[in-house]
Amino acid sequence: LVYDAAAGPRDSDRISLAMHVIHVHVHVTPDAVETFKAAALINAANSLKEPGVARFDVIQQQDDPTRFVLVEAYKTTEAIAAHKETAHYAAWRDAVAPMLAEARTSTKFTNVFPGDDAYGMPPSAERP
Amino acid sequence: LVYDAAAGPRDSDRISLAMHVIHVHVHVTPDAVETFKAAALINAANSLKEPGVARFDVIQQQDDPTRFVLVEAYKTTEAIAAHKETAHYAAWRDAVAPMLAEARTSTKFTNVFPGDDAYGMPPSAERP
Repeated sequence: LVYDAAAGPRDSDRISLAMHVIHVHVHVTPDAVETFKAAALINAANSLKEPGVARFDVIQQQDDPTRFVLVEAYKTTEAIAAHKETAHYAAWRDAVAPMLAEARTSTKFTNVFPGDDAYGMPPSAERP
Repeated sequence: LVYDAAAGPRDSDRISLAMHVIHVHVHVTPDAVETFKAAALINAANSLKEPGVARFDVIQQQDDPTRFVLVEAYKTTEAIAAHKETAHYAAWRDAVAPMLAEARTSTKFTNVFPGDDAYGMPPSAERP
């Protein structure tokens, strides 16, 4: 791909950018780190099986192991709502509530690079 | 994989968790949003070609398009240092400096889920 800062991507290079990436920041109490990791693993593995979920990463901060980020990539806005209706989400939410050192926060993003294809999505022209 | 909150992962399920995931938070001035995206695309595409880089995502905040996160995944600590020695990193750093609304910040994480294999790394037992 060749990008021109002034002209933007060339038409022939246009890629679809329509993922919904959510970063959920979680801060747990020191005694809850290992149980949080176990609960987060179960939730993430089950969430990845949802058809609208492209990624569900759990990462732990190196200089403060009580801080985590869930990096969730959804194919549609409907998939975000569907995730919140699952049994594994409800179980995770309830399990981690007493572990939290402060309320969790989340921020929504759209992908700039790479395109949706890198998240396992077909080109938009081929979508129903 | 079956995880037991009390016992942790079973030995037979152990997976390697040794990625270095860096979130770089970038806040640019409103007039610089499109030129920043173009510069970030070039840097990300070139960075993905580095042998020690597993991911180099650029995402844009939905409720504030002047805010971006670079999600960089490195296979080793040496790969982080090697990235900073590249010409494309230096060009990106210098190009975006005048676009910044505030100093960029970064946070380092380790992967909890999924394992290194999801980042394209072989199991640790097979590594040199």
